[in-house]
Amino acid sequence: MNPTIELLKSHRSIRKFTDQPIGTELLHELVRAGQGASTSNHVQACSIVRVTDVAKRERLAELAGGQASVSGCAEFLVFCADMKRPMEAAARAGADVVAGMTEHLLVSSIDAALLAQNVAVAAESVGLGLCYIGGLRNNPQEVSELLELPDQVYPVFGMAVGYPAHQPDVKPRLPVEAILFVNRYDDSRTAEQVAAFDQTMHDYYLARSSNNKSSSWSEQLKPLFTVKLRAHMKEFLNKRGFGLR
Amino acid sequence: MNPTIELLKSHRSIRKFTDQPIGTELLHELVRAGQGASTSNHVQACSIVRVTDVAKRERLAELAGGQASVSGCAEFLVFCADMKRPMEAAARAGADVVAGMTEHLLVSSIDAALLAQNVAVAAESVGLGLCYIGGLRNNPQEVSELLELPDQVYPVFGMAVGYPAHQPDVKPRLPVEAILFVNRYDDSRTAEQVAAFDQTMHDYYLARSSNNKSSSWSEQLKPLFTVKLRAHMKEFLNKRGFGLR
Repeated sequence: MNPTIELLKSHRSIRKFTDQPIGTELLHELVRAGQGASTSNHVQACSIVRVTDVAKRERLAELAGGQASVSGCAEFLVFCADMKRPMEAAARAGADVVAGMTEHLLVSSIDAALLAQNVAVAAESVGLGLCYIGGLRNNPQEVSELLELPDQVYPVFGMAVGYPAHQPDVKPRLPVEAILFVNRYDDSRTAEQVAAFDQTMHDYYLARSSNNKSSSWSEQLKPLFTVKLRAHMKEFLNKRGFGLR
Repeated sequence: MNPTIELLKSHRSIRKFTDQPIGTELLHELVRAGQGASTSNHVQACSIVRVTDVAKRERLAELAGGQASVSGCAEFLVFCADMKRPMEAAARAGADVVAGMTEHLLVSSIDAALLAQNVAVAAESVGLGLCYIGGLRNNPQEVSELLELPDQVYPVFGMAVGYPAHQPDVKPRLPVEAILFVNRYDDSRTAEQVAAFDQTMHDYYLARSSNNKSSSWSEQLKPLFTVKLRAHMKEFLNKRGFGLR
């Protein structure tokens, strides 16, 4: 189609990086590209903590569930939903602030995600690779303390960025017709589409260049739903000022 | 830097569109580019409702708070957080499903945002313009009924897409140093940075090519915090199966 669309379609998570550094100037350019993303009512409710400290990197790698890419990447960025900055700005301008609405959680989490995805695209456009690290939400309280995050700020996910030392296969996605509906949500064909995609993923897992296994999409999803997934999140968010009210 | 990064940095919301249609083939290509984005544990927790029905478009424009771009764009897409498809897939594979965790809300909302931002970048790369419509969350229950969204699915935001009929200025963003911290969150300079940015936005609002006003960033933020912002969201999400537990 065009080089940008080809880039978007060729994304794969990179978890092994060369020793080549990124450099602060390029990193700032990636963040500026990130900031170009849409932001709800211009609220700009995202902050990033760039973690260069080796001990903090190693601790974050543990807190994320033992992910070597966190310590082994050129740059590790923690994308934070940040309602503190806009709230305090509004308060200084005279607003009598009402904090902690569920909507504030959504606005700031979505703002962080839009900005991060632009950073990801920008990074890949200059030959870098990356992996989102949702595992920071395994231990969000400890991550928050380590990075001295105040109330109204929480770590949504991390991103390990660097020059790729491997080139994994692009993982298949559901067909467009399985996720794109017209005028109404109609999942009458979903079970059939998922069965076909399970076969696609089964073949992919057997054939891919590393970490082969016999599995399927549905099989891989089971652990996400058979436990109370990150059951600490509600209490954590409430405690940190995202009152879910 | 390179054309992709220039594209990311030149985003502006487009709210007026020509009559030129997009075409289903190109639309599907944009969605495929969207699907290339990262997805938490490959859960692919996003569905899109493409609204072509004129009456539904007009109703959505009202529900979003009277936004003419919703009815006046070539394509209007409603991005939905969708935990129904992966949950039911896991259940069919034998999982004893635990639904409605706060973490499920985060995973699916973030998945939807990452996918949407890739669609946005892809659209702009072929000369289209777009505007996110968070206003759908003004009336999420009515939107859900109109589009027949089932439980475990909610409308995160809409996106109006089409060929631009205006070319607004690019809105300034906070400087990189105001949002990028190193090793720890340190907002000791934030008040000063925001004051400078208030001046930047004041000058921008006075000088921009349309809709001039005398305001600042902090002034514009006040309405987001002086009311219980979208106070219905918690009850709505609970009712729709995102139990916030």
